Amino acid sequence: MRETFHGQLAQLGEHLVEMCGMAAESMRLASRALLTADLQLAEQVLSSDAVLDRARQTCEELAQSMLALQAPVAGDLRTILAAVYGAEKIERMGDLAAHIADTARFTYPEHAVPAEFESLFTELGEIAAGMAERVGEFIVGDAGGGFAELNETDHAVDALHARALAEITGADWTHGVQSATSLALVARFYERFADQAVSVAKRLEFAETGERPTSV
Amino acid sequence: MRETFHGQLAQLGEHLVEMCGMAAESMRLASRALLTADLQLAEQVLSSDAVLDRARQTCEELAQSMLALQAPVAGDLRTILAAVYGAEKIERMGDLAAHIADTARFTYPEHAVPAEFESLFTELGEIAAGMAERVGEFIVGDAGGGFAELNETDHAVDALHARALAEITGADWTHGVQSATSLALVARFYERFADQAVSVAKRLEFAETGERPTSV
Repeated sequence: MRETFHGQLAQLGEHLVEMCGMAAESMRLASRALLTADLQLAEQVLSSDAVLDRARQTCEELAQSMLALQAPVAGDLRTILAAVYGAEKIERMGDLAAHIADTARFTYPEHAVPAEFESLFTELGEIAAGMAERVGEFIVGDAGGGFAELNETDHAVDALHARALAEITGADWTHGVQSATSLALVARFYERFADQAVSVAKRLEFAETGERPTSV
Repeated sequence: MRETFHGQLAQLGEHLVEMCGMAAESMRLASRALLTADLQLAEQVLSSDAVLDRARQTCEELAQSMLALQAPVAGDLRTILAAVYGAEKIERMGDLAAHIADTARFTYPEHAVPAEFESLFTELGEIAAGMAERVGEFIVGDAGGGFAELNETDHAVDALHARALAEITGADWTHGVQSATSLALVARFYERFADQAVSVAKRLEFAETGERPTSV
């Protein structure tokens, strides 16, 4: 029974790691589609989102069957609940990447990101994708300290987000209202993507240690 | 044991209903603060958000202890998982109401919502708060059909959200870029609040029936 349980737990972890990889990839491709006004790539991200949705459902069903058949307690129970929680958040990360791709599609053939903001949004996309990958590493490895690490990374994302908003709404903005609102929403999608990664890291650390990590 | 379990389940339900009431109230007050540029009210919503955060943690701890001690299966297990899921979403609804209040605070003493949009945002706020209350009713009563109902209501929210965005980015917009981006983000907070209510209704219906309801 314990062996089955640990086999299933490993399987659940593998699914989640795969989901993190998909979310990171979606974020990278969506960012590229946004920055290069690549319609085909944007559509690829949008259609691949269904894969992540199914993966989340698979995780949930596996977790639910483990709860019903194995009645885990303590750390095992926390781990399974963290997996249910994480699967939902990682699916949401995919949704947010899809929103970015959707903005690229909506704006096409125009570029949603004015040239002077390209480096800022490139950086946002790279940091966000990297956070999804770090979550995957916390799942297979040691999740201790993961919350503090990603919380720190999230401060950088928040600073970029704030800078973007300040420039969009500043006196020097010359790209009009439509472009401003679209870019403000896109900036928020990146910021929310990063928030989800932080919350999964927090939950994974709680599952591992039994203590709710506090922010620094 | 079953009696304890059902007592705890009822207690969990009561907490969740209370959370729905708090989310609905926060949405109403945040909307009023936004529409009347009421700084004090905005601050009240922002400070009361911590109560909802704690209520969510109480729900989660109760659910986790029920899972560990009672090892529920089938419908009972689905119900407890729905409670964990719901508590997280309702807490998020409170966060979104707090974001609306925060916009009112940030914009004060200016009004964030231009006069010609007041009725649209009033309607968004009322519908959204009503959705939170309906979720509470599904928790104590019959959740069957709840997803279809709130999904239908959500179409009205989506239509209002789309209308707001179209007007904000339309040729007749005269309130400048800062006001446009702020209002576009606020419109999104209402829309996301409604989305959370739909997803909780869906999960409650699944808990009750064992079938995942599909959208109409």
